Amino acid sequence: MRDTLYVINPNSSQAVTAGIDAAMEPLRRAGGPRIECVTLADGPPGVQTQQDVDRAALSVLRFAQEHQDKAAGFVTACFSDPGLHMLRELPGVLSLGISECGALTAMTLGQRFGVVAILQGSIGRHWRTWGAMGITQRVAGEVAIGRGVTELTDREATLSAMIAAGKRLRDEHGANVLVMGCAGMAAYRAPLQDATGLPVVEPTQAAASMALGRIQLDW
Amino acid sequence: MRDTLYVINPNSSQAVTAGIDAAMEPLRRAGGPRIECVTLADGPPGVQTQQDVDRAALSVLRFAQEHQDKAAGFVTACFSDPGLHMLRELPGVLSLGISECGALTAMTLGQRFGVVAILQGSIGRHWRTWGAMGITQRVAGEVAIGRGVTELTDREATLSAMIAAGKRLRDEHGANVLVMGCAGMAAYRAPLQDATGLPVVEPTQAAASMALGRIQLDW
Amino acid sequence: MRDTLYVINPNSSQAVTAGIDAAMEPLRRAGGPRIECVTLADGPPGVQTQQDVDRAALSVLRFAQEHQDKAAGFVTACFSDPGLHMLRELPGVLSLGISECGALTAMTLGQRFGVVAILQGSIGRHWRTWGAMGITQRVAGEVAIGRGVTELTDREATLSAMIAAGKRLRDEHGANVLVMGCAGMAAYRAPLQDATGLPVVEPTQAAASMALGRIQLDW
Amino acid sequence: MRDTLYVINPNSSQAVTAGIDAAMEPLRRAGGPRIECVTLADGPPGVQTQQDVDRAALSVLRFAQEHQDKAAGFVTACFSDPGLHMLRELPGVLSLGISECGALTAMTLGQRFGVVAILQGSIGRHWRTWGAMGITQRVAGEVAIGRGVTELTDREATLSAMIAAGKRLRDEHGANVLVMGCAGMAAYRAPLQDATGLPVVEPTQAAASMALGRIQLDW
Amino acid sequence: MRDTLYVINPNSSQAVTAGIDAAMEPLRRAGGPRIECVTLADGPPGVQTQQDVDRAALSVLRFAQEHQDKAAGFVTACFSDPGLHMLRELPGVLSLGISECGALTAMTLGQRFGVVAILQGSIGRHWRTWGAMGITQRVAGEVAIGRGVTELTDREATLSAMIAAGKRLRDEHGANVLVMGCAGMAAYRAPLQDATGLPVVEPTQAAASMALGRIQLDW
Amino acid sequence: MRDTLYVINPNSSQAVTAGIDAAMEPLRRAGGPRIECVTLADGPPGVQTQQDVDRAALSVLRFAQEHQDKAAGFVTACFSDPGLHMLRELPGVLSLGISECGALTAMTLGQRFGVVAILQGSIGRHWRTWGAMGITQRVAGEVAIGRGVTELTDREATLSAMIAAGKRLRDEHGANVLVMGCAGMAAYRAPLQDATGLPVVEPTQAAASMALGRIQLDW
Repeated sequence: MRDTLYVINPNSSQAVTAGIDAAMEPLRRAGGPRIECVTLADGPPGVQTQQDVDRAALSVLRFAQEHQDKAAGFVTACFSDPGLHMLRELPGVLSLGISECGALTAMTLGQRFGVVAILQGSIGRHWRTWGAMGITQRVAGEVAIGRGVTELTDREATLSAMIAAGKRLRDEHGANVLVMGCAGMAAYRAPLQDATGLPVVEPTQAAASMALGRIQLDW
Repeated sequence: MRDTLYVINPNSSQAVTAGIDAAMEPLRRAGGPRIECVTLADGPPGVQTQQDVDRAALSVLRFAQEHQDKAAGFVTACFSDPGLHMLRELPGVLSLGISECGALTAMTLGQRFGVVAILQGSIGRHWRTWGAMGITQRVAGEVAIGRGVTELTDREATLSAMIAAGKRLRDEHGANVLVMGCAGMAAYRAPLQDATGLPVVEPTQAAASMALGRIQLDW
Repeated sequence: MRDTLYVINPNSSQAVTAGIDAAMEPLRRAGGPRIECVTLADGPPGVQTQQDVDRAALSVLRFAQEHQDKAAGFVTACFSDPGLHMLRELPGVLSLGISECGALTAMTLGQRFGVVAILQGSIGRHWRTWGAMGITQRVAGEVAIGRGVTELTDREATLSAMIAAGKRLRDEHGANVLVMGCAGMAAYRAPLQDATGLPVVEPTQAAASMALGRIQLDW
Repeated sequence: MRDTLYVINPNSSQAVTAGIDAAMEPLRRAGGPRIECVTLADGPPGVQTQQDVDRAALSVLRFAQEHQDKAAGFVTACFSDPGLHMLRELPGVLSLGISECGALTAMTLGQRFGVVAILQGSIGRHWRTWGAMGITQRVAGEVAIGRGVTELTDREATLSAMIAAGKRLRDEHGANVLVMGCAGMAAYRAPLQDATGLPVVEPTQAAASMALGRIQLDW
Repeated sequence: MRDTLYVINPNSSQAVTAGIDAAMEPLRRAGGPRIECVTLADGPPGVQTQQDVDRAALSVLRFAQEHQDKAAGFVTACFSDPGLHMLRELPGVLSLGISECGALTAMTLGQRFGVVAILQGSIGRHWRTWGAMGITQRVAGEVAIGRGVTELTDREATLSAMIAAGKRLRDEHGANVLVMGCAGMAAYRAPLQDATGLPVVEPTQAAASMALGRIQLDW
Repeated sequence: MRDTLYVINPNSSQAVTAGIDAAMEPLRRAGGPRIECVTLADGPPGVQTQQDVDRAALSVLRFAQEHQDKAAGFVTACFSDPGLHMLRELPGVLSLGISECGALTAMTLGQRFGVVAILQGSIGRHWRTWGAMGITQRVAGEVAIGRGVTELTDREATLSAMIAAGKRLRDEHGANVLVMGCAGMAAYRAPLQDATGLPVVEPTQAAASMALGRIQLDW
């Protein structure tokens, strides 16, 4: 029975998965599909390089193949959307990516979105994604907070860096909506929104909420 | 209490509203927001010209202002999305448009979407929308079925014209996903999909399903 | 007899209309069409929100319909060009918009134009226009002077804010031509040009001058 | 005294210049600048190759330098606009090109313009121009009539080829406005318009009419 | 000693590698880097799906890591360039992709290139690549010959399908240069060029020739 | 016998040609084509204005025509690529431009390139080139060092200005690869790379290395 939406955290960090799981809470409902957030034990601690992304892609695929018969849909919960286009080749199952849906959602909340990225080195890869999606015209810019995965545990410093990046995107790049360029940071959404005065898209929630609607439609 | 998603048909045709209402059925659920499809009595019989669109915009706004206190969200159920950007200025209520959401949804189902338009004269207006959305790179093309609103009641001829347009979009324009350029034609989605072998987006369902997710998130 | 070019100020400010009227002086000539600048009494004091724009659109249309038999052409003299695409449906009469013609003219004076906007909140709407026009590649950026309509009467402070915005567009955004993002500020054109060293387009003059040529050609 | 608008035919064909001159008739007026159409004796019989264009550029520049003190403005009356960007470096004189102004004018008459080109081999060069202008999104396509310069004297065959090209642009490429990709074919404008049902832009008239307005403004 | 340019055929077909190897002949020279064409035994028989591409990517990476100390550079010899962006993270070694270099080379031979694709299902993926490269404006279109990998051994039928596709790209899509959307078909380049009258880019040769120059520069 | 690659410095500065010649050293090889760097005695001292470019174009053409029978290829060694599209009309000889190849090469080294320009006034012209090439999406921006040709002899000040421009492109414009917007500055490549930490493309080397490969292929 295909009744589960799998939100796949392709890194091996349980803490990230826990953050994602908490962010799914408002989307869970009695009759709805189950939303199950999973950690891929064989993933890297953090997806940072292209090699991380492309290796994670096959782990994501393997997970999807193994759970296909129970899956109503899959969300790739990493801002590089590892494996997304492979998942789309699986017949009869919906797959959405968080950078994809984060961007598409931002496009309904403002005219030019800015991305609060984690690492400088990922920004070029993100631009390839915006180019492949054909939406670069809507991207105001990206600013990295420049903190490695392990440094993200210092929440106060992380939030403060995100707010600085958000303000720079607003004031220098002309963004009027922000996208958080990372899964599992939903807890920062409200304070970032308050501090910048701009709507902020948390991409995993954006993707999961779109997935639920599509599952209902059976598209 | 803000618990209703209003799907606003800005033309005065009850039949169109009935078609939309039927299309909402899979999206209704026990605990979820009510989905109410409304006909604007003061709208034109069909929204065809720019004047129709811009006049309808104010009717849509008036309806929204009057129902704002009960609204969890609004969907503008006409492919020219009349009034959408005005509705977005209303504080604390979500508004989504069907051409907008039809396109964004198509962008997750294929790389280049084709639009089955109703009238040749609307295509220029649609291109302005795709340009304003910054997504023209994803548009394979538009083909009109060239049937006036009153002629749409001949369902067999309409479907057959839609299939011809869909095949032309696929074979000459290179579309690998289709968007129906009209509200209230949900009944044609499945046969159009079968006949062309391409995924088909019914835009009112696309918009309503996105709206429901956003209402849950309270974004 | 269709011998008048109507330049329609869609807000209710006579002072703005007077400024526009003065700006038309170099374009008036003996044998040419009359240029009549009109204030729409039912317009808002200033067109600032999308609702202002869309409401003004219908006032503009009503005026045009009432004066169609005397009109050689219409210019929508507000940087959001309310009603422009409706006016274009009127048979046998030319209609041009000032943001449209301001941009097209700037494209002959420099490679990347910067817009001195009035309010931050309008910039997203302008980008939708540049997108619909398919010319975003030519837009260096927009900077708002951030002064409300009532504050524009302080001319010295307004000019000084425009110059600051113009220099920022030149130095940070790489603009090599400027467009004034507002009707009725023709008096600031020369000093803004002198202070920035860049050509400056006053959009109402740009639109009216193009309209006069088109009227001669009867296109 | 700078009171003449020079419309420069950079090829050596007097017949072409005569056609241009006739097309200027509606734009001439008592108090206005003189409009003088000139043939460059040292130009090629027809501007067809890039070498023709770049050689013509220097002839155009030389003419402009020699007539600068009498010039209110220059129009480069060849669809490759030879020398346009050099003329723009001359201080205090306006210069406009016909492909440039033909395109900008078309952008006010329809959403996607088609170009009726003369020779297949020029189309790549035109696309470079549309790219440099940043307006490719507005170009529906180009279709060449495939007739050499000497063959253009057969007017019936030429018109018939233009109509065929125009219909192909309308029906296959989705153009809703046409631009004639050649100077001096103004006589075909009306019949091409009638035959295709689309507005048709004659680019030399478009450029000259814009130039006259700009001369009045002294921009 | 890093003196070998590895041209990696990521599918397991020795025949394809042999074709590539023959195509490298004109690029080999006495003092130059060795050019070694390799077959990845663990690759799929043909790279057709996204899963094929993403699986091949890791095989390509593994090969590159194992041969890194002898490599002057790598060319990914499959039109989906599997692993290219991972290879670029390897320090001190050049990596180029054939679809990438095929397109970049075509951009110096014509204004709008057409791609003769093998399978219809790959075209969407190619468009994502052109989008990520930011060059969609230069793509006239793609036409697939619609022959599976095993059917490519019938050389006469394959060439005839390629010529038909090339002519369609030239006549319907306006291409003035062609790119062969597949590695190892160098033998068809000359006849395709002769039959269509357009320059034809064989992408593996394009990539290898660029790689040799870059190796000389040590970039 | 066509065995020489001519690298044409279209200005009359022998010092620039000497710099180019030194930069060609790593590309010369025993069996390879001769690489001959030439100064055009009739060129301007520096190519700065559009008039310089367009005049130089004809000198470049004349040189090419005179040396065509010995030429394996031509490189236009000025960042405005004077005459490039004329040279391409010469049958049977390859022609590449340095701004063209500098940009194409940068597109394989990073996602968004920044250009270190010499003069502010050239930047608009460069943007026309990027537009004509259809690659503006890949351009992060341009920053001029603002030094005239004669001031370039102060090498320390020039390098220091280039480094400042490069850092601004990296930090404010988001460039992750740089292109030197001038021929004959190869000596600065390594220090600019070291100081900014970004890969730097010297465009004459980029063009010559591509040309050598194409000569081998006889394309």
